[in-house]
Amino acid sequence: MTHSTKIAVLGTGMVGETIGAKLASLGHAVTMGSRTASNEKAAAWAAKAGAGAKTGTFADAAAAGEIVFNCTRGDASLAALEAAGEANLRNKILIDVANPLDFSKGMPPSLFTGNTDSLGEQIQRAFPSVKVVKALNTVNCQIMVDAARLPGDHTMFVSGDDAEAKARVRTILTDWFGWKDVVDLGGIATARGTESYLPLWIRLWGALGTADFNVKIVR
Amino acid sequence: MTHSTKIAVLGTGMVGETIGAKLASLGHAVTMGSRTASNEKAAAWAAKAGAGAKTGTFADAAAAGEIVFNCTRGDASLAALEAAGEANLRNKILIDVANPLDFSKGMPPSLFTGNTDSLGEQIQRAFPSVKVVKALNTVNCQIMVDAARLPGDHTMFVSGDDAEAKARVRTILTDWFGWKDVVDLGGIATARGTESYLPLWIRLWGALGTADFNVKIVR
Repeated sequence: MTHSTKIAVLGTGMVGETIGAKLASLGHAVTMGSRTASNEKAAAWAAKAGAGAKTGTFADAAAAGEIVFNCTRGDASLAALEAAGEANLRNKILIDVANPLDFSKGMPPSLFTGNTDSLGEQIQRAFPSVKVVKALNTVNCQIMVDAARLPGDHTMFVSGDDAEAKARVRTILTDWFGWKDVVDLGGIATARGTESYLPLWIRLWGALGTADFNVKIVR
Repeated sequence: MTHSTKIAVLGTGMVGETIGAKLASLGHAVTMGSRTASNEKAAAWAAKAGAGAKTGTFADAAAAGEIVFNCTRGDASLAALEAAGEANLRNKILIDVANPLDFSKGMPPSLFTGNTDSLGEQIQRAFPSVKVVKALNTVNCQIMVDAARLPGDHTMFVSGDDAEAKARVRTILTDWFGWKDVVDLGGIATARGTESYLPLWIRLWGALGTADFNVKIVR
């Protein structure tokens, strides 16, 4: 890679690990943030991910990144971003990969936002200067970073209020992760659309017996 | 057609008109039901739809049909089915095409069921003997009855508790309406999946500038 970008990945789960590993493999400087600086999963990830990989608190990561991926659990996202700190996030692009899944009402999960709000909007309201772009939340993490994992063409969605930020995220999706069909749904309120798709995704996962699938918008 | 089926279509909107016209054109005996026996839209539809087309009240239609299509507005469906009458619906297959769209909270509409229930389940609970199969609610009515309207392969979903009823509906989808990829999501509770997809469908409609699209599940 000729140009290395400083990226924060918030969250040490499978999504954060996978996105962080992909970005590090592309030569970017990735800092994985978690609640404590001594998170064992983050340390194990960094040891595997190689030279560009660092770890730290949510605040350390957000301060280090030019672009921030929110890979925390949906019900922990706002707290994680508070811990990251508004000053460290200010005016940055935040790619919100999380979904507002509510496991408290039994399986399969429902959405704690209902369907007159979305996690993407909640984050945007809490951090008005941040350029929140909802993306990648409609596929499993292996497909997120490697669209060619599935045969043929299939679709990724972006939602966000800032056109420039969305254009940058589109470039990340196409150039780094191999996405070919990226549909801009509109402002961040359209995150209600892709988050509301999760209840269908979950049932397809059950019906198909695999999480390796995605939708292609045929038109 | 060698075999004509008696079918009730409940609802005189564009969905009912289109499904009813297609079924009548295939040689089936279609009765369109509405709140009153003298509905003008139903009469106009029957005059165009030809020999097999009749009109009547919801109860007339339900009594006449072996199979019932619920093409009423989601927020009017339970009342329409009450008017149709449990005795007229008993043990029949009801293909529920409606969506629980709530226009009272502004545009675009949300879902009045929230995401811990679905209209399909509400209908099944209200009419336990009826074999409710949720289907066709994820595309516009032109595509419902003519899958080949879109290029290539794309996906239709069915949800229902009765396996035999779902098999019958699958045959209707493939043989009458041209669907090739029909995914069985499971019991009627999985209607939450396809109904929750509507908020994404609505935003895609806006972003694409056309309602002529559908999803293909790529796996």
